[in-house]
Amino acid sequence: MEDKVLLAHGSGGKLSHELIENNFVPLFKNALLDRMDDSAVFDVNGRLAFTTDSYVVSPIFFPGGDIGKLAICGTVNDLSTSGATPLYLSLALVIEEGFPLADLRRVIASAAAAAEEAGVKIVTGDTKVVDRGSADRLFINTAGIGVIAPGLDISGSNATPGDVVILSGPIGQHGMAVLCQREGLRFSAPIESDCAPLNRLVADMLAASRAIHSLRDPTRGGLATTLNEMAKQSKVGIRIVEDKVPVLNPVRGACELLGFDPLYVANEGRMIAILPAAEAEAVLAGMRANRYGAEAAVIGEVVAEHPGKVVMTTRLGATRVVDMLVGELLPRIC
Amino acid sequence: MEDKVLLAHGSGGKLSHELIENNFVPLFKNALLDRMDDSAVFDVNGRLAFTTDSYVVSPIFFPGGDIGKLAICGTVNDLSTSGATPLYLSLALVIEEGFPLADLRRVIASAAAAAEEAGVKIVTGDTKVVDRGSADRLFINTAGIGVIAPGLDISGSNATPGDVVILSGPIGQHGMAVLCQREGLRFSAPIESDCAPLNRLVADMLAASRAIHSLRDPTRGGLATTLNEMAKQSKVGIRIVEDKVPVLNPVRGACELLGFDPLYVANEGRMIAILPAAEAEAVLAGMRANRYGAEAAVIGEVVAEHPGKVVMTTRLGATRVVDMLVGELLPRIC
Repeated sequence: MEDKVLLAHGSGGKLSHELIENNFVPLFKNALLDRMDDSAVFDVNGRLAFTTDSYVVSPIFFPGGDIGKLAICGTVNDLSTSGATPLYLSLALVIEEGFPLADLRRVIASAAAAAEEAGVKIVTGDTKVVDRGSADRLFINTAGIGVIAPGLDISGSNATPGDVVILSGPIGQHGMAVLCQREGLRFSAPIESDCAPLNRLVADMLAASRAIHSLRDPTRGGLATTLNEMAKQSKVGIRIVEDKVPVLNPVRGACELLGFDPLYVANEGRMIAILPAAEAEAVLAGMRANRYGAEAAVIGEVVAEHPGKVVMTTRLGATRVVDMLVGELLPRIC
Repeated sequence: MEDKVLLAHGSGGKLSHELIENNFVPLFKNALLDRMDDSAVFDVNGRLAFTTDSYVVSPIFFPGGDIGKLAICGTVNDLSTSGATPLYLSLALVIEEGFPLADLRRVIASAAAAAEEAGVKIVTGDTKVVDRGSADRLFINTAGIGVIAPGLDISGSNATPGDVVILSGPIGQHGMAVLCQREGLRFSAPIESDCAPLNRLVADMLAASRAIHSLRDPTRGGLATTLNEMAKQSKVGIRIVEDKVPVLNPVRGACELLGFDPLYVANEGRMIAILPAAEAEAVLAGMRANRYGAEAAVIGEVVAEHPGKVVMTTRLGATRVVDMLVGELLPRIC
């Protein structure tokens, strides 16, 4: 049983300390975490962003990522949507008794690598172990803090008629990658999750223009649900053009085969930006110079008509309403 | 199934929005949360404390509290141990499909009441639903941010020989309350959890003396484990006196019957303070004026001998080493 997580690893006693000191602290090495008090302490001045997400993805390893990378990128991206520079993250684990320690180390190493890439520090954490059968392998929660530069005002409620809608890259990869892995489906062209930290992409966008109105990453519920949220928050209409929304062929093929609409499939490395049309070229140029925005494109516009609703001009030239996701498409996708 | 949590409540789509807007937002009502962006945004200046904990207690309702109250108090108390004034909390739920909505509402109402008592705001959150059997009812994660007044330096590594060790009240109630509820044990004098937000108690202590060296709440692993952590962090010895450590009679009786040592049983509303002996009377007076510190007492001292170790003078006058918890006493106690 030495190579498995035991209930005692979550006791708060000796085994908890050993697990954390031997496996976690060395990978996340930073002075704030090393202090080992119940809270991390640091100086910050100005406007902060604060967010949290729990990650329950199944399976925990999938092409293009794993639950550790996802837990870092998801929270980094949520902070980025407020225009914040992500700085500090917490990491809390709920582990099922018997979970292989080797898998835990792999997840933690992946989280550490994603944090390194994003330039954020894991400064506080928690480890709980539940009895076998009381959780499915591993759940992770991260919360994060970022700092917003003075003068920035980015919110889902700032979209204005006349704005354009920019999408940073093709949709549907994360959801289909996880689904194919879960169901053991293999296609000739394998689908990889787009899971990535987008804070540097957002920094490049803000360097190009500080007039960005709204940012949002289209995760659960996909592009369709996120655009609906933004339309409702801003009390505007959004019109997108089907032909302009990029979908990779393997994703399109898998979606057609399995009966999914890519508009509703989760992404973990894509950003939607809404901004004045006059800023679009500069922002697109900034995005395309970043590896995570190479395929950025204008996919639509904000209109005064049909406030709170999203419509799409289809390939056939028709217009249809694109509603928020109803029901559940793919449970445990993130 | 209308009265149960469905997978679709975690989809990020329509049902997620309805669940959150109808059940959570009204109870946590505050302008930061109402913004409904992916991050909460607020201004803070100075030294911050940041912490996280996941809560997996079983059963989720127990005498003296529930998982909602616990999730707020635990994080408020962790922030308080750095001398911070807790301000903002996140709240993230992992819910098992089929969990009764009435129970969820009860937990959320309890969390809201605890936040209200502590004077903290829930400003951001997340809701995930996993398929039946993939989690045991409900897990909660909270993270929190607090502000530390200039000049305060409180850390588990600041204990100094000559300091006294103060405990805010009797030990072992939370662990035994949860255990008795879990196992259906009934004693003539029922045991209630001590679960409570201690930030105002800590404020009263700091009003009495800003020279407090270390604060720590003895949760998982109990008083014994927490004192060991402090002794190791500060590289000092700690000596406590068994007779001075308060244990309520019902807790002592239940522990004796069931073979537990109250020193290792979890608390959720107790604070350990280590401070110069000259400050003890003032701090004790400040504590005793607070409902959560009415029974505060000096239970021991910090010594230069046996650094990293805790010893106890027993009722019989002998001295024994009090080690950190080894193994797991009571899984899922918090």
